Amino acid sequence: MILDIRQKTKFNLQSISQSFVVSFNYEIYFTDSLFSLKNPTLAQVIAADGEKKPKKIVAVVDAGLLEFWPDLLQQITNYTNFYAEVLTLAVEPMLIPGGEAAKNDPDLLAQIHQLVEAAGICRHSYLLGIGGGAVLDLIGYAAATAHRGVRLIRIPTTVLAQNDSGIGVKNGINAFGKKNFLGTFAPPYAVINDSAFLSTLCDRDWRSGIAEAIKVALIKDASFFDFIYEHATALALRDMDTMQQLIYRCAQLHLQHIAKAGDPFEKGSSRPLDFGHWAAHKLEQLTNYSLRHGEAVAIGIALDSTYSYLLGWLSHSEWQQILNTLTGLGFQLYIPELAETSSLFQGLKEFREHLGGELTLTLLQDIGKGVEVHEADLPLYKQAISLVYEFGK
Amino acid sequence: MILDIRQKTKFNLQSISQSFVVSFNYEIYFTDSLFSLKNPTLAQVIAADGEKKPKKIVAVVDAGLLEFWPDLLQQITNYTNFYAEVLTLAVEPMLIPGGEAAKNDPDLLAQIHQLVEAAGICRHSYLLGIGGGAVLDLIGYAAATAHRGVRLIRIPTTVLAQNDSGIGVKNGINAFGKKNFLGTFAPPYAVINDSAFLSTLCDRDWRSGIAEAIKVALIKDASFFDFIYEHATALALRDMDTMQQLIYRCAQLHLQHIAKAGDPFEKGSSRPLDFGHWAAHKLEQLTNYSLRHGEAVAIGIALDSTYSYLLGWLSHSEWQQILNTLTGLGFQLYIPELAETSSLFQGLKEFREHLGGELTLTLLQDIGKGVEVHEADLPLYKQAISLVYEFGK
Repeated sequence: MILDIRQKTKFNLQSISQSFVVSFNYEIYFTDSLFSLKNPTLAQVIAADGEKKPKKIVAVVDAGLLEFWPDLLQQITNYTNFYAEVLTLAVEPMLIPGGEAAKNDPDLLAQIHQLVEAAGICRHSYLLGIGGGAVLDLIGYAAATAHRGVRLIRIPTTVLAQNDSGIGVKNGINAFGKKNFLGTFAPPYAVINDSAFLSTLCDRDWRSGIAEAIKVALIKDASFFDFIYEHATALALRDMDTMQQLIYRCAQLHLQHIAKAGDPFEKGSSRPLDFGHWAAHKLEQLTNYSLRHGEAVAIGIALDSTYSYLLGWLSHSEWQQILNTLTGLGFQLYIPELAETSSLFQGLKEFREHLGGELTLTLLQDIGKGVEVHEADLPLYKQAISLVYEFGK
Repeated sequence: MILDIRQKTKFNLQSISQSFVVSFNYEIYFTDSLFSLKNPTLAQVIAADGEKKPKKIVAVVDAGLLEFWPDLLQQITNYTNFYAEVLTLAVEPMLIPGGEAAKNDPDLLAQIHQLVEAAGICRHSYLLGIGGGAVLDLIGYAAATAHRGVRLIRIPTTVLAQNDSGIGVKNGINAFGKKNFLGTFAPPYAVINDSAFLSTLCDRDWRSGIAEAIKVALIKDASFFDFIYEHATALALRDMDTMQQLIYRCAQLHLQHIAKAGDPFEKGSSRPLDFGHWAAHKLEQLTNYSLRHGEAVAIGIALDSTYSYLLGWLSHSEWQQILNTLTGLGFQLYIPELAETSSLFQGLKEFREHLGGELTLTLLQDIGKGVEVHEADLPLYKQAISLVYEFGK
């Protein structure tokens, strides 16, 4: 081998091609009352790693949960004591303020890193992240970067996190006023969806998560949209069985897209499922995150569906059906920030920059069929905004 | 599909298995005088992405280079002007203090993030990182986390970076007094090794990089070790042709290990090529990073080779050959910090924690044959330290 090299002239060493694949596998479990001592799910997930036990774990918990689950930290401690052969709580659980605030404070990232360090958590130990999507995004970023990645078990506690953000491969925090400016692609070790947490969600959070289900239904699966349309009242009335089905199917569609679209880490031109999201991201920022992500997505869906209708791609009745489904669930489709078009349209540029390459928007060619376009007709978008306004009157 | 779900009982939704692979491909180019207008390598690498041109680039440069290459920033500007159809320098290059200091100042990370933001660099734009291994580790971490990963072209300027740290899949910075506590696994978009930069290295940096070649030769390739042993004088006398061959073969072995050992991102129990590294990492810290990484690795190799000899796995003459090769190249094998055994042996614990799972040390069963062990005999290690001390007298 050395001789081969010697035969080449000094500065004509051949380039070396590096090429490899990395497999990622994880399971999304659906359970109820995760920390009930009778529920072995979490212990089983950790037991199954085939490594020496007990395993060290640390838990980072969305502080917003304690209002409805005041015994949660005690339950976690009791659970780890009960399953002590399998897992050991290395330090007291850490609390993180809930909601988007978690992603706007870089100190919290440093605090989680410090926790991992202080607890002596290694790449074969476990960090449990328990909370809503924003808190899990922060925890995921911390877990992915400490020791170049410790094992993260996500326990999403909102509809949005259980059907979308908490089951995928992304994490992130906000920086420079830009959503998710910092983050990585890092699949979790496992996800455990616990339906008990859904029962105590406020109506806004219950509803918010449905927006991502509508999004994925509209671009991927007309029969799933029909299901949501038909069950809008049951969902609005907080029927848990219907919600469980919605979460399951929505999670399935998201996971399939990540695995099958050929580009899970979005290195090329493959797109995430971001219908309605360019406006949503910008509206969240313009409202100082007083809008929930799902509420912003609902507006974004209404806007981009209306734009698709104005392009002649959706019929009047399809367009009405979409907007009626959204309002039937209780979403507000018009907010004054939609009229601040120069700020709003800045969101198109930021959307392009964040994803890279040319601008790519997903629109609807039909219910259940998303298509990508690479330009935005701003006068037509203004017309769409007017129509959304009219619809809401 | 929805019907299937409905037929299940409420809390018996099946778990969903997510599974996918991600391919990573990148090229390591060997060239001379990269920013000479006659050298099209960099422009070609960017031209080959098949996307709309010109592409935005930003450059982050090791400030230590300017002492020997005072025109470097001007050359970069001239180069981008000359190849303006392919690439545009979005902002002035940013300078980063060279050496391990780059990894100890979290502000620098934030500054690179800010540069990416200010320049409007997206996932399809390019960040050029130009410098030694430490600077590239910092830049790599910044690139991997801005927008969840912008394209990074690494231009390593030291022997160590060209044959090891700059060609692999890791990045990182130090935190909590621990080396590489923060970082990710993130392959570069491409690597361009420019031999011109080697000519101006100080002797310490020239020599330091050879340590990693000796490491990989000792555990993987006896004939490569013979090559180094035979050419130790030429290498010490700074023969560039010999160095180029050393870098090429060392890079090749490192890349093969990453691609072929089955676990490029070290999720399981696969090991990086870290022979001699447990002590090296700790000695760097104990000397406040006044030791170069390669100098510390040379000491670590001497120590673990001696320990392997004491275990009866290496013959006396093999052991002597290894230590003579190191001293023949000019490495100092004994430093007083080796005698601070309680601090030094703390490095074993930190090494285990960083990599996760049980302690795994690589030792030598023969020249060219590394083996893994899972325990450390501390009294025997103390004896090995004495022997290294005796050898150096």
